[in-house]
Amino acid sequence: MNAVRKIEALRALIKELRWDAVIIGDSDPHGNEYIIDRWKIREYISGFSGSAGTVVVTRNYAGLWTDSRYFIQAKNELFGTGVEIQGQNAHDFLDWLYVNMPHSSVIGIDGLCVTQQERQKLENRLLDKQCHIESKPDFIDAIWTDRPGYPMGIVIEHNEIYSGESVLQRLSWLREVLKSANCAYFPVNALDQIAWLLNIRCNDIEYNPVPMSYALIGEDIAVLFIETQKVSDNIRLKLENDGVTLLPYEKMFSYLETLDPKKRVLVDPFSMNSELFKILQNHFGEKNLILEQSPLTLGKAIKNPVEIDGCRRAYVLDGIAKTRFLFWLEESIELGHKISEIVASKEIANFRGENSEYRGDSFSTISAYGENAAMPHYSPVQDIETELKPKGLYLIDSGAHYLSGTTDVTRTVPLGPLTNLEREDYTYALKAMIALSTALFPKGTPGCRLDSIARIELWKTYRNYGHGTGHGVGNMLNVHEGPQSFRQDFNNQPFIAGMITSCEPGIYREGSHGVRHENMLLCVEAGKNEFDDWLCFETLTMVYFDTTPLLTELLSNTEIRWINNYNKRVADTLLPFMNEKEAAWLKRKTKAI
Amino acid sequence: MNAVRKIEALRALIKELRWDAVIIGDSDPHGNEYIIDRWKIREYISGFSGSAGTVVVTRNYAGLWTDSRYFIQAKNELFGTGVEIQGQNAHDFLDWLYVNMPHSSVIGIDGLCVTQQERQKLENRLLDKQCHIESKPDFIDAIWTDRPGYPMGIVIEHNEIYSGESVLQRLSWLREVLKSANCAYFPVNALDQIAWLLNIRCNDIEYNPVPMSYALIGEDIAVLFIETQKVSDNIRLKLENDGVTLLPYEKMFSYLETLDPKKRVLVDPFSMNSELFKILQNHFGEKNLILEQSPLTLGKAIKNPVEIDGCRRAYVLDGIAKTRFLFWLEESIELGHKISEIVASKEIANFRGENSEYRGDSFSTISAYGENAAMPHYSPVQDIETELKPKGLYLIDSGAHYLSGTTDVTRTVPLGPLTNLEREDYTYALKAMIALSTALFPKGTPGCRLDSIARIELWKTYRNYGHGTGHGVGNMLNVHEGPQSFRQDFNNQPFIAGMITSCEPGIYREGSHGVRHENMLLCVEAGKNEFDDWLCFETLTMVYFDTTPLLTELLSNTEIRWINNYNKRVADTLLPFMNEKEAAWLKRKTKAI
Repeated sequence: MNAVRKIEALRALIKELRWDAVIIGDSDPHGNEYIIDRWKIREYISGFSGSAGTVVVTRNYAGLWTDSRYFIQAKNELFGTGVEIQGQNAHDFLDWLYVNMPHSSVIGIDGLCVTQQERQKLENRLLDKQCHIESKPDFIDAIWTDRPGYPMGIVIEHNEIYSGESVLQRLSWLREVLKSANCAYFPVNALDQIAWLLNIRCNDIEYNPVPMSYALIGEDIAVLFIETQKVSDNIRLKLENDGVTLLPYEKMFSYLETLDPKKRVLVDPFSMNSELFKILQNHFGEKNLILEQSPLTLGKAIKNPVEIDGCRRAYVLDGIAKTRFLFWLEESIELGHKISEIVASKEIANFRGENSEYRGDSFSTISAYGENAAMPHYSPVQDIETELKPKGLYLIDSGAHYLSGTTDVTRTVPLGPLTNLEREDYTYALKAMIALSTALFPKGTPGCRLDSIARIELWKTYRNYGHGTGHGVGNMLNVHEGPQSFRQDFNNQPFIAGMITSCEPGIYREGSHGVRHENMLLCVEAGKNEFDDWLCFETLTMVYFDTTPLLTELLSNTEIRWINNYNKRVADTLLPFMNEKEAAWLKRKTKAI
Repeated sequence: MNAVRKIEALRALIKELRWDAVIIGDSDPHGNEYIIDRWKIREYISGFSGSAGTVVVTRNYAGLWTDSRYFIQAKNELFGTGVEIQGQNAHDFLDWLYVNMPHSSVIGIDGLCVTQQERQKLENRLLDKQCHIESKPDFIDAIWTDRPGYPMGIVIEHNEIYSGESVLQRLSWLREVLKSANCAYFPVNALDQIAWLLNIRCNDIEYNPVPMSYALIGEDIAVLFIETQKVSDNIRLKLENDGVTLLPYEKMFSYLETLDPKKRVLVDPFSMNSELFKILQNHFGEKNLILEQSPLTLGKAIKNPVEIDGCRRAYVLDGIAKTRFLFWLEESIELGHKISEIVASKEIANFRGENSEYRGDSFSTISAYGENAAMPHYSPVQDIETELKPKGLYLIDSGAHYLSGTTDVTRTVPLGPLTNLEREDYTYALKAMIALSTALFPKGTPGCRLDSIARIELWKTYRNYGHGTGHGVGNMLNVHEGPQSFRQDFNNQPFIAGMITSCEPGIYREGSHGVRHENMLLCVEAGKNEFDDWLCFETLTMVYFDTTPLLTELLSNTEIRWINNYNKRVADTLLPFMNEKEAAWLKRKTKAI
């Protein structure tokens, strides 16, 4: 069925359902960053495959709302479909609905793919017009006859020697939290939270090692809702031994209705899908739903000593691979070999793959040469091979899962002569990284107040970057996690010892070049005195910074000392793992300036 | 009547009113920083005169909630009254009421003295217990028989040559704002907003040159509610000429009830007292009240070119007085004269008084020697004369109103030999000031992200201070105004060119010494490029920094250059106004380091 036919079929369907419009967004029932195939509904219906975008279809109109990153792609993919490209960002469809939908319209959604928070926003926006939002889960089944089923990855145990805590320990901690909130039940909808809580991992989704599932934790119950054939007998027995019952994925909904409706339920409206929320609302009543951020969000973000040690180890493993890659790259360029961005990105995966703890990449590698690096989220495209040349800057942002931890590192390296502006940008971005990496700050400090400490080094020279400075990272889990972040947004979550957050300032010049340096920072205690309780950061990443692009006259003595100390620490740690040629080269690369 | 009798009389009154408790806080109907005498109800009833504190009296209990600054004072003032000192801060009484008041209690307040926002907070806190909040304006009249009347200050015109805008201009701007918010009326309750809008000033309140009044602005009406005998015929005619009707202060309430109840009203719940709010609610209905920050708050904070020039002038006038004071102080100490903190604080007022534009102090001068300066809000007490000695640090934080602007300056100066710690603290606090004063930042940046740019200079050395870094300042108006601030709090208001904000980092060591440096920063445009629209600050304050305490090895070359440039600018500006001896001394003081 081509896209025009699909839209026609959808129009027939909404007429049959007595809807006036339908909203198809870019989410799945678990709010995953990488959508499970079964829920790529927007792509199926419109053909548009970008990561952000919402399609609205009414009886006589069809539009896509996406952001400027995707305008060209959307134009190509939507050609001939009759779907009009709209808006500056993926959420402007709310305003369009408000203006264009008649009073008392019925707007259809698949409530599984809309979080409760988003549904609330939708309802509030259309309140004045008394529009009615109606959810029909899986309505697309009527059209999408060959729709993929549930992913059938294999569940593996995430051993306690890596997680540092048993399932029983985590369950009993969570039950204490529920007790103090006076709640009897806690349904979990976010996959990384379930994986963390139950010490399991899975390959249901690209890059994120999580199992498609729901969980329900109560005073004396713990249920994992998952396609049961994905779980080996061994793991099932272990889980059952810890009091965790396994039931099929879809049973979550009916199971909730068997619970005592007079009890209070802890609900995270930020991650819960609105269909699940509606069932809870009907069964327990509004008054018994206690809306709060999931305790697992913070619990998971504060790493325990075993996880921290594991993460340190993962950064050594990752450092070995990345250093050997950079040696290979420099040598190949010098020898005049033809290397494309895609070849380079495959090569880094090869070097990582040599380690037995490697469990796949943690996101799609950004391998960007020259002006391509000016696009912060650039991915090389198979059919446009950009070749690396012996001049200018090459940026590689990549990460992996190791059994003991997840990594995310960016280095920008010179492939030959640089312009003065490239050197300046390289130097200033590194100053910003050093400023945040060496910050000492009082307990209670939120990320937006630390973000500006990195940026001021760039602001001073009228430079800035359009993305956040850093995100939390899971432990052999999603590479992007909350609750903390270094961003300009007001995020109430203060930094706490044990949190692991990226620090990735950059400078991007369209049509010319891009620089980004990214290290991973572990928040650690730094003593207490008459003024405050103090925190600081330990850098976990183990990849040298190339000193040849630096304009040393722009650096303070303290900054030069930091760079030399860091490069020395990297060399001391990695030299034992290098062959003779690599070692000689790494010594040269990390020589003090 | 002594305090015990007053509490007894209050108990009899609440019994008669069928209340179970009464709350008496620290506010007046206009949310003034300095409470009008008539509304010093808490002080009258309990004897406690501190600036922050709430008294709760029930049928069988009486307690005061205040913060630790006032514990000693409260203990003395409440001795023998039966009022118990409670809590760590002035708002903990909410929790006490929640725990101690029986279900369905009736809690009495004087709604004039509670803002709508506070009343809402109170109601929300006691929702579970179904307590009923009942307001009776001026209930205290039944006990306080010699209660002061309304203040009868003299209203003066704030000439357009100082305000830069006519009343008509400001009214028509405000009416445009109301129109675009689709509101017909806007009642004003904050006195500085009324003074700014109508170009008037008054001496009803200490330090704040504002008239006790209400105002109501509509599409085609403008009414000033004020005790009419305070307004000269001349000013009345001028106002009437601009379409402003004058009515007695108390008529505001009945006047509101004559307005068209079908219109929408803009209401600022942050500043409006809850009694006024209730009347609006009853008359116009909840749906017609549009709750938003008063447009006058931001309008007033963004100074126009005339106000900015006036402020520059005020800082020169203030700089002359403060410089001559500092010369007098240094000379007197050298000559071995006996100088107390109080004598010094009177002397600074004398120097200021020599200027014909001086219109009084903008707050109570903080004149603090040695360990007294470790209390950031210290005021010398008449009967404990602390004498200044030829060693250590002396801190003076003072400000004044001039016709063209309001000032607020702090300098910490050495009176003789200093310890190394004093010198370090002095140097680091100055580094923090320089960091913020020289910051370049993108449009849209809120204060909390700038606050940390000052503090990081102290954090680096495990130092910090317990107060905000800066507050907005009015133009010949209140020395503390919003909406912007440099604080750790999330304040959504970004900095905008034309805002004037203090920058006052400090370091305080109990029992030893205190340092604070305070300059006033004007936010100005700083160009635009491919990355952003930029802002920076211009320092308005004109008082040299003493360089002798500085540990220059702790300063960067850029910082030394900033200090030398600043001191040179101060000398160049002020030397023409100094006598020969003063001039020779100022040249020495401002010599480059």
